[in-house]
Amino acid sequence: MNRVAIEKSVLSVNNQIAAHLRDALDASGALALNFISSPGSGKTALLEETLKLLPHSTRAAVLTGDIQTDNDAQRLQRYGYPVRQITTGGACHLDARMVADHLGDWENFELLLIENVGNLVCPTSYDLGEDAKVVVLSVTEGEDKPLKYPGIFRRSELMIINKIDLLRHVPFRMDLARENARRINPRIEIIATSCTTGAGLGHWMNWLADRAGKKVRAAPSQEVVHALSGT
Amino acid sequence: MNRVAIEKSVLSVNNQIAAHLRDALDASGALALNFISSPGSGKTALLEETLKLLPHSTRAAVLTGDIQTDNDAQRLQRYGYPVRQITTGGACHLDARMVADHLGDWENFELLLIENVGNLVCPTSYDLGEDAKVVVLSVTEGEDKPLKYPGIFRRSELMIINKIDLLRHVPFRMDLARENARRINPRIEIIATSCTTGAGLGHWMNWLADRAGKKVRAAPSQEVVHALSGT
Repeated sequence: MNRVAIEKSVLSVNNQIAAHLRDALDASGALALNFISSPGSGKTALLEETLKLLPHSTRAAVLTGDIQTDNDAQRLQRYGYPVRQITTGGACHLDARMVADHLGDWENFELLLIENVGNLVCPTSYDLGEDAKVVVLSVTEGEDKPLKYPGIFRRSELMIINKIDLLRHVPFRMDLARENARRINPRIEIIATSCTTGAGLGHWMNWLADRAGKKVRAAPSQEVVHALSGT
Repeated sequence: MNRVAIEKSVLSVNNQIAAHLRDALDASGALALNFISSPGSGKTALLEETLKLLPHSTRAAVLTGDIQTDNDAQRLQRYGYPVRQITTGGACHLDARMVADHLGDWENFELLLIENVGNLVCPTSYDLGEDAKVVVLSVTEGEDKPLKYPGIFRRSELMIINKIDLLRHVPFRMDLARENARRINPRIEIIATSCTTGAGLGHWMNWLADRAGKKVRAAPSQEVVHALSGT
């Protein structure tokens, strides 16, 4: 087997596990989001703000991936929700097996937030069974990133443009960033946020509640009341 | 063959090509640097400033890698030095074969600057025949990156902490960033720069001239006068 064949086979195994995960999530109506970005774009800070702003009765759970350290899990554990660190030990992305293994005995959640390894390339190819990929781009990275790393922008349902409090200190053009993202993916939704000033977080939380509501309404059983979506 | 065996074999082929590249560079006394960072840390801007500040007689050449677009090559071509874009078309890192193929008929250079694909993980494993890896970390990414992505910090000779003009707008602690990098690699050299204000660029250019001088002095033939190092 050559390398391409091996990679296809690895992706095929991954897709099977991801399909099982997706079936289970769909059956329960739980929404799973896969957050992907460069290192240091502010994914963890965004998830911290999200956990602070969620209605307290939300049954949320968080998986956070890194090559090394459990720093992110430590940061995220302060908010009263179950959090597990996935340390990949060298692998440049999460895969569906890692997610399945770390979900363990968690069952009764309605929202699963998955923070991928900081990498705009490799996580793109690995389906984790999520409902949607969310790409986070910070304004310090430059507005050309959708063109240079088109894969993740093509596959994401939402782009969060983060750290907009730094806009006046960097030569980032918001209009061009939006235009570049839409050249790659005309349907991508875009929300601009700052976890420092709180700008845009209300917009983001509304998007999240709306998306969770859609997922619940599509689920076979609607007996459980979901706090986040009010459904 | 399983996946690990395939990866070992791919790396082994890469290392053979890299060894040939290194032999050729060593014979001529040319210095090759492999710049690695997250997307958007400012590698291209740093290379632009470097090309502006080089003594005009320096025989420098630049290879710049990206998944898509030749934006970076266009930016770098303004300074009168030969520049080639390597578009990987999906691959998350440069490899030695790409470098060898793109060097083409370039021969008489004394400095080769290689800008890798923006990715803190995968480029780390691929030797390009370079003399040294230079990791660029921008202050907006956070001072924890050496601990979370130890591989590249362990293998780099120099860490450039870039965008220090933004220090007062972000919660980045320079002392902690240095400490974290030295925990991973006690011998790493560290230079702080801003391509916006020019801070630290003199320090960086001195490091570059010094490193080029060492390389020339180690080369078997010293007939050629190298402009950069004054040797």
